[in-house]
Amino acid sequence: MRLIGHGSSDAAAAFAVYAFGLLPGWTAVRDSISLLVYYDAQLDFSDSVVIALSQSGQTPDVVAYAERARAQGARTIALTNEPDSDLARLAEISLPLAAGPERSVAASKTYLNMLAALALLAGACAEREQETAEALRTVADVLAASLDPLEHAVSEVALAFAYVGRMYVIGRGMEIATAREIALKLKETCRVAAEPLTATDLVHGPVATLDALFPVWVIASRDAGLRAVLEAAERARAAQATLVSSGSAAEEVAGAAHVLPVPAAPTPVLAPLLSVVPGQLFAATLARAKGLDPDHPEGLTKVTLAR
Amino acid sequence: MRLIGHGSSDAAAAFAVYAFGLLPGWTAVRDSISLLVYYDAQLDFSDSVVIALSQSGQTPDVVAYAERARAQGARTIALTNEPDSDLARLAEISLPLAAGPERSVAASKTYLNMLAALALLAGACAEREQETAEALRTVADVLAASLDPLEHAVSEVALAFAYVGRMYVIGRGMEIATAREIALKLKETCRVAAEPLTATDLVHGPVATLDALFPVWVIASRDAGLRAVLEAAERARAAQATLVSSGSAAEEVAGAAHVLPVPAAPTPVLAPLLSVVPGQLFAATLARAKGLDPDHPEGLTKVTLAR
Repeated sequence: MRLIGHGSSDAAAAFAVYAFGLLPGWTAVRDSISLLVYYDAQLDFSDSVVIALSQSGQTPDVVAYAERARAQGARTIALTNEPDSDLARLAEISLPLAAGPERSVAASKTYLNMLAALALLAGACAEREQETAEALRTVADVLAASLDPLEHAVSEVALAFAYVGRMYVIGRGMEIATAREIALKLKETCRVAAEPLTATDLVHGPVATLDALFPVWVIASRDAGLRAVLEAAERARAAQATLVSSGSAAEEVAGAAHVLPVPAAPTPVLAPLLSVVPGQLFAATLARAKGLDPDHPEGLTKVTLAR
Repeated sequence: MRLIGHGSSDAAAAFAVYAFGLLPGWTAVRDSISLLVYYDAQLDFSDSVVIALSQSGQTPDVVAYAERARAQGARTIALTNEPDSDLARLAEISLPLAAGPERSVAASKTYLNMLAALALLAGACAEREQETAEALRTVADVLAASLDPLEHAVSEVALAFAYVGRMYVIGRGMEIATAREIALKLKETCRVAAEPLTATDLVHGPVATLDALFPVWVIASRDAGLRAVLEAAERARAAQATLVSSGSAAEEVAGAAHVLPVPAAPTPVLAPLLSVVPGQLFAATLARAKGLDPDHPEGLTKVTLAR
């Protein structure tokens, strides 16, 4: 499975690596767009399925990639919120996200629907469609019930970050998708230079940057990657960094200044649907605290037509 | 081809995606380590070659991945500077980097030797070994000749960045490897929060962060991705960001405050070996200007044993 997308769609693609790897046991990759679109590489697509992700269905190089991959033998699936778009038309299969109009430039519900659609597809490929669909319905209920308490918790934390200019957001395994998406929201709505890193990458260099004025957001989910995350958090704390922890194991991050726990998902692979919510709410709250409009960040447009 | 590594090794893996994609036309990916090592995913490795990159040959999860992938049917190649290491011993084939002892914590010559080894291997897979080897010898000569002028040019630029806390480093196509490596050097030796982004990703959100105090380093090589890079640079300039440009097409970045050109490579795929050098020299110079020791960053050790 070759996944392509930019921004939030690329974060969703990172989730698909784990959804397909863990459910049907298939190799899924965030593919290089430029290899095909700019360098005209002659790759063998005959045993590849391409999933092209784009909220608008108009992202130019995603459309160009899907077109060429199909011509070179790939099966193509479009995952978009616009079933009438170029991308949906040129792909053999279009899975509409049905998220309703995205009124905000910074996509949030589209991202969640992308994760849900990818999980459902991966579950179906593993012949576990029914079970995955039921688990997704449970996630939706859990999410709805946790919104109010999370919004309250986040409002007490965000103000402390009004003068923060840089952050790392760390996760491991499937939560790297969450780290990417939260970091992107902090960049586009709050103007914070937030870089997503795996917990392990943090200690391979970037930890040297940290001090008391350089906070680290730690996504701690109760899964097999947790120990690596807790060890990286410990290294960040040793460097005096202020820690924010979120995720189903947020309470296990020793010395976190701010803790934003979320409920456990009914199946581990769906955890990222819940883990991202504190970050989305945090970004919206922090943006407003800074006098910025999170729905219309300066310099961005809803549909990005850049190459 | 599945490549794994952290830090500079991961940046080299990003180069391999293009070297294998363009020379033999093979699909190469930066693989997920945690899917195999933490989640115990049952993937089919029977038609995969794994290239495990580690300067020390001791990175624990890289060693663990190589071990499991081999047990699950992959052919394994170690690319390490330590032919006596765990990694070299457990892989079926070990390609020694022969870079000599890395005296600095922040690897530089190991990175270049990794790129050269990957290019040579990709060239051999394309039955273009001789031609690739000759081109690499030319690159080595060109690099040696450009060190002095580049070091001089860089020393005039670095001081202006003494108070910079955050930057983006953008590239496109194969130069994303260079963007990753330069950003990592700025983080680990200069304590600058420098995030690598593709030129296209910059405009999908992060551009909203930019202002006159948020510089952007633009890697502009004369290849098929150049137009996308120049357009992204234009967007960054419109947001008032100070631009540093480097690469063989550095002079084409309109309005760049600092220009650090490098000679063109004898074949396009080898450009990243030359493009990274201004960044390495810049990081060393800036670190010293800030009173930091680029060879021994605080909080880092030569061999990272973190999970």
